[in-house]
Amino acid sequence: MKDYRVYKIPTDSPEDVSGLKDLLNSKEIKPEEIVAIMNMTEGLGFARGYANLAHSVLLAEELGCTIEEVPRKIPLIMIGGCSGLVAPYSAVFVEREGKEETAKKDEKRFAFGVSVTRDFKPEEQGTSVQIEAVKDATLDAMKKARIADVKDIHCVQVKGPWLTPALIAEAEKRGEKVVTNNLDLAGGYSRGASALGAAVALGEVRSNQAKDALLEDLTVHSSFASASSGTERTNCAVIVMGNSTHSSSKYRIGHGIMKDGADAAGVIEAIKNAGLNTGLDNIESVQQKIDHVFVKSAVDGTGSCRGRRHVLTSDFLAPYSWLLGKAVIHATVTSIVGDPMMQVSGGFEHQGPLGGGLVAVITLAD
Amino acid sequence: MKDYRVYKIPTDSPEDVSGLKDLLNSKEIKPEEIVAIMNMTEGLGFARGYANLAHSVLLAEELGCTIEEVPRKIPLIMIGGCSGLVAPYSAVFVEREGKEETAKKDEKRFAFGVSVTRDFKPEEQGTSVQIEAVKDATLDAMKKARIADVKDIHCVQVKGPWLTPALIAEAEKRGEKVVTNNLDLAGGYSRGASALGAAVALGEVRSNQAKDALLEDLTVHSSFASASSGTERTNCAVIVMGNSTHSSSKYRIGHGIMKDGADAAGVIEAIKNAGLNTGLDNIESVQQKIDHVFVKSAVDGTGSCRGRRHVLTSDFLAPYSWLLGKAVIHATVTSIVGDPMMQVSGGFEHQGPLGGGLVAVITLAD
Amino acid sequence: MKDYRVYKIPTDSPEDVSGLKDLLNSKEIKPEEIVAIMNMTEGLGFARGYANLAHSVLLAEELGCTIEEVPRKIPLIMIGGCSGLVAPYSAVFVEREGKEETAKKDEKRFAFGVSVTRDFKPEEQGTSVQIEAVKDATLDAMKKARIADVKDIHCVQVKGPWLTPALIAEAEKRGEKVVTNNLDLAGGYSRGASALGAAVALGEVRSNQAKDALLEDLTVHSSFASASSGTERTNCAVIVMGNSTHSSSKYRIGHGIMKDGADAAGVIEAIKNAGLNTGLDNIESVQQKIDHVFVKSAVDGTGSCRGRRHVLTSDFLAPYSWLLGKAVIHATVTSIVGDPMMQVSGGFEHQGPLGGGLVAVITLAD
Amino acid sequence: MKDYRVYKIPTDSPEDVSGLKDLLNSKEIKPEEIVAIMNMTEGLGFARGYANLAHSVLLAEELGCTIEEVPRKIPLIMIGGCSGLVAPYSAVFVEREGKEETAKKDEKRFAFGVSVTRDFKPEEQGTSVQIEAVKDATLDAMKKARIADVKDIHCVQVKGPWLTPALIAEAEKRGEKVVTNNLDLAGGYSRGASALGAAVALGEVRSNQAKDALLEDLTVHSSFASASSGTERTNCAVIVMGNSTHSSSKYRIGHGIMKDGADAAGVIEAIKNAGLNTGLDNIESVQQKIDHVFVKSAVDGTGSCRGRRHVLTSDFLAPYSWLLGKAVIHATVTSIVGDPMMQVSGGFEHQGPLGGGLVAVITLAD
Repeated sequence: MKDYRVYKIPTDSPEDVSGLKDLLNSKEIKPEEIVAIMNMTEGLGFARGYANLAHSVLLAEELGCTIEEVPRKIPLIMIGGCSGLVAPYSAVFVEREGKEETAKKDEKRFAFGVSVTRDFKPEEQGTSVQIEAVKDATLDAMKKARIADVKDIHCVQVKGPWLTPALIAEAEKRGEKVVTNNLDLAGGYSRGASALGAAVALGEVRSNQAKDALLEDLTVHSSFASASSGTERTNCAVIVMGNSTHSSSKYRIGHGIMKDGADAAGVIEAIKNAGLNTGLDNIESVQQKIDHVFVKSAVDGTGSCRGRRHVLTSDFLAPYSWLLGKAVIHATVTSIVGDPMMQVSGGFEHQGPLGGGLVAVITLAD
Repeated sequence: MKDYRVYKIPTDSPEDVSGLKDLLNSKEIKPEEIVAIMNMTEGLGFARGYANLAHSVLLAEELGCTIEEVPRKIPLIMIGGCSGLVAPYSAVFVEREGKEETAKKDEKRFAFGVSVTRDFKPEEQGTSVQIEAVKDATLDAMKKARIADVKDIHCVQVKGPWLTPALIAEAEKRGEKVVTNNLDLAGGYSRGASALGAAVALGEVRSNQAKDALLEDLTVHSSFASASSGTERTNCAVIVMGNSTHSSSKYRIGHGIMKDGADAAGVIEAIKNAGLNTGLDNIESVQQKIDHVFVKSAVDGTGSCRGRRHVLTSDFLAPYSWLLGKAVIHATVTSIVGDPMMQVSGGFEHQGPLGGGLVAVITLAD
Repeated sequence: MKDYRVYKIPTDSPEDVSGLKDLLNSKEIKPEEIVAIMNMTEGLGFARGYANLAHSVLLAEELGCTIEEVPRKIPLIMIGGCSGLVAPYSAVFVEREGKEETAKKDEKRFAFGVSVTRDFKPEEQGTSVQIEAVKDATLDAMKKARIADVKDIHCVQVKGPWLTPALIAEAEKRGEKVVTNNLDLAGGYSRGASALGAAVALGEVRSNQAKDALLEDLTVHSSFASASSGTERTNCAVIVMGNSTHSSSKYRIGHGIMKDGADAAGVIEAIKNAGLNTGLDNIESVQQKIDHVFVKSAVDGTGSCRGRRHVLTSDFLAPYSWLLGKAVIHATVTSIVGDPMMQVSGGFEHQGPLGGGLVAVITLAD
Repeated sequence: MKDYRVYKIPTDSPEDVSGLKDLLNSKEIKPEEIVAIMNMTEGLGFARGYANLAHSVLLAEELGCTIEEVPRKIPLIMIGGCSGLVAPYSAVFVEREGKEETAKKDEKRFAFGVSVTRDFKPEEQGTSVQIEAVKDATLDAMKKARIADVKDIHCVQVKGPWLTPALIAEAEKRGEKVVTNNLDLAGGYSRGASALGAAVALGEVRSNQAKDALLEDLTVHSSFASASSGTERTNCAVIVMGNSTHSSSKYRIGHGIMKDGADAAGVIEAIKNAGLNTGLDNIESVQQKIDHVFVKSAVDGTGSCRGRRHVLTSDFLAPYSWLLGKAVIHATVTSIVGDPMMQVSGGFEHQGPLGGGLVAVITLAD
């Protein structure tokens, strides 16, 4: 039996690792128990790198390795863009020995598995090669989580690569062509390939269908994947979350689908799916049993909501529509779950229904 | 008996008056019945002016007056900044003769009154002079709405002036000093003075207290006022909304207070206050009885929500925190009321509780 | 003999037409002499529309026509985005009867011609149809300017259409496909087609080459065209500027090419090309003979300048790189020509060398 | 005799220290010779911190100290905001033993001195305490540069502190009041105090005058200081640059004042002041003798340029007017000096003439 928990550690800035340091100092968390970190960080791209480096400096010391080795040992998934009321914090994924007796026999409890693909060549990024590799990593992570049935999977987080001018130049020097020279699009191809890879692993989409749909047909999507991309990576890190009979965790996970950014019913669905018997009217009483939430925003995937035109993607802040979309969906989720501290990721290619998003909720089972 | 109704007319762009034109052509609305227009328009300041001019061109033709005379006859209140899922549209306030028998005896129904202050000199804008004038206009608008008791008031919309470099220069030429040379602050003084004027009229704040608090103590605030400001005005237009025994309207109005941007309970409170017996679980069944919503966002008035730090006012989009705050509160309200088409106004000085906001809801009474 | 002049009229805001009104009132300009207006306006898209409507309202009264008819009679070319030190103003193109004796025999003087294409169907916008139509309009405008030799042309301003969701939907309803559903790209196709149309007319590019190059090979470009696009149009307005023996204007025009955004030599080249004998050291003495300047910015067309990487198109303000590029090239031009009041247009597809831009200068000939 | 040189090391991103590492590995620079680093970095605040941490990690290894100790040993001055064509790079200030015979007797050559103030309490930041401390540090840095006469000083770079919510809270807990709770203003107070401290040291402003003028009268300013501020510091680092008879450097420094953002004459003045005999017409021939440039932008300090209104501080990008102002002044300076790689700092309180800026130029003396 293994015990699984995702700690919430508030941060004051991208480089703030003081909360994690305190938990390591107090032995609440042992460094070797950390299998992944998802950091919901304020700021943009460079803030993600900054958070990455700061965590690496701390963990190098704790693990007795070099700063460069840390991200190879522990996937550091930095989610930039704290928009609206999103609270900056670190989600620290801890796996430790659990007591056999904690969970009732045959009851499924929260578990996760982490897997990392090989490094991709620039010309492989955002292509069917990435789809295949993420498929394999998802299956590997399921195995590590000791979850055999895809029906027990509720959320797959993937952080993948993002082409840079330097990588494109390196490929061209070798006579190879990357998927696109447009850097914005390149991020989309990477996220799309990651999401489709997970979708193939989970049986949502067939392999051939995935390859054909990549950035061609966005309605082909995974209802479980939340993919992001960053120039700090050249491989994909995959975290599979679900429920397992081999877990002694105190928690359970479930998920729901929000049809649009204001769809409270999708959040209720996720909470129920995670085992809490709730309607809207007793929501406050169950809020204390909600431990952690993961949201994917595809709010900026459409130009209207409930038949009403909006200007997310056309008005003067359109370049930041992914951020405004996050603010929207986060407000709706918060209005139900109570705590504004959750992971909210944008960049919706082949994830969630256009205009809406996936919500995964970890709840206290006991 | 008078009949009151606020039409919702979707717009495709700031200058789109085709919907209003259609209703005028079909005689659904007669030009002389229009007493005010609130336009929730995409874009920023110039879009407000653009909407203003386009409406004036149309109404000049309809009313048989010059373009310049229109805003003097019909207050045109342009609310810029459609953020998140906010749907651009015009709210057209129509007052017409009502049938005596429509409303039950002694039952109070939706009514509004509109009043406009005199033009202010630049040095009067955003000062106690404006507080006093808005107080008087609010009382005058109450009288026009034939509402005697302040307890029947649920929303006061005020659009006031905003200093421009030209106005400041004009005042200085006469040896007069304006309230501030900082144009950003000037908008705040104007909104604050408007809100405090309404607060004094409604007995929320004493006159002296208002003068002392102006931009000094933001906790002194009105729970009914929603004030905005624009360089297109040099006076204040006031719309008072409430319930009156002299109204034969099919509608009722109520209001609630949202403690923060994700406070769904405040929206429920407003719906109940407007006479609909609802909890969260039957919300969908009552949504069709919700006719119109007015929201004030003070979401960007604090740096945290429910004890969690957020970065609305510190991260790289902080200059647009008022817009992001609107996206947040609008999502929460929409998740309850259903229709994303509503008025959402930012600029929260002396309005709403810091971090939250006022919600006024017009519901079908029958 | 015709006399030609482009007036500079400072504006205080997009809708400010008071300066033009004064010149009309004083009879300095007669309404029927105005053949085109280029307005360098602050704000973005809606500000352009606002300026358009305000000018139309004024000119409808002056010309005794309806507001809708004005842009059909007088091309109104609104250039949005006053960045850096760019001064907002209107350039009013006036053509009037000139005295025979004003210009020396055989000396060529400043002249312009204006031509407008037919309205395009949505599916024709940004395609070879637009290339052909702009080619024809350019040749027609040359004829109107009575300039026979393309060597006498120094600047071609084209304002073309920009697809909207409504136009795309209309085409799709008829089973037609527009050049792209991506609205950003659509603007680029329109500007590119306009520029290539002018290039074909001026003999810079062959017709077939133009069609193949459209948004495929940006190095194929016009050294004379400055194209912009706007949703307010469904046709192209073309202003051809050059020197003609049939002009009695006091002015001459010339042009130069800036290799990058800081290339002062390109500005000097333009001034010399316009007939002023200048080097950098006596620049101040000739500044008073410089009447008007038109600049196209392709500064954001590259990621480096003089071998040094810059972050115009990669940093957090990258969505506004076209605006920042304008600020850059405008500063360099202003440092030479003296007056910050000039037309500066972004959106560089098939215009100017990537990273640099075209500068056309009108100088006092006498 | 000491030898002084400021290396230009291009960077690919905030955390890129590979160029510096190469120079350290090749022994071109020895770690103990580095006395300060100014990093012109892309991105905003967090990018500055990121660059800081990355440099500290590298230098900790090189100097054999902890990461935390590095900024105490070597002032790391991170200038965020690469706008327009500004090239990201590190300026590494190196002081090493020089050969006696390098410089001609009595000839003054480039020298610099670095000094750091004590840490300030929050309530001391941006006050007369900071003015005094910077005055003392400036005099100390002059001594270290072995420059006795203020006439030999041409540039004073100061990086000071910036209040944070945490620091303000800490002060309030002790019953102390900080200079302002407005974080934007706090940066201005810090920069202003730094600039005035340098001004007092250099005899430009009297001590009492400085205290009274702080953010009250911005016309009181230093013509030599370039001050910036950052939350990463709680003290001030001062770099004084000038010419000294005790230097064997190959370089000389001079400065000029740009009256506005397009004032090329101010740049020429600086080049001449640094000993190069140039006019504009032979500028290209002297460009190869220009080694390094430091610019302060106060371009956003006014609303007009040469009598023409601009919209830097009023249009929709006004929150970034400091960045756009940098793009403007940098273009003008680059058009003269040739290389876009230079330090350009915004935040102009009590520095440079409003609307213009200081330019310091290091030239090759031989």
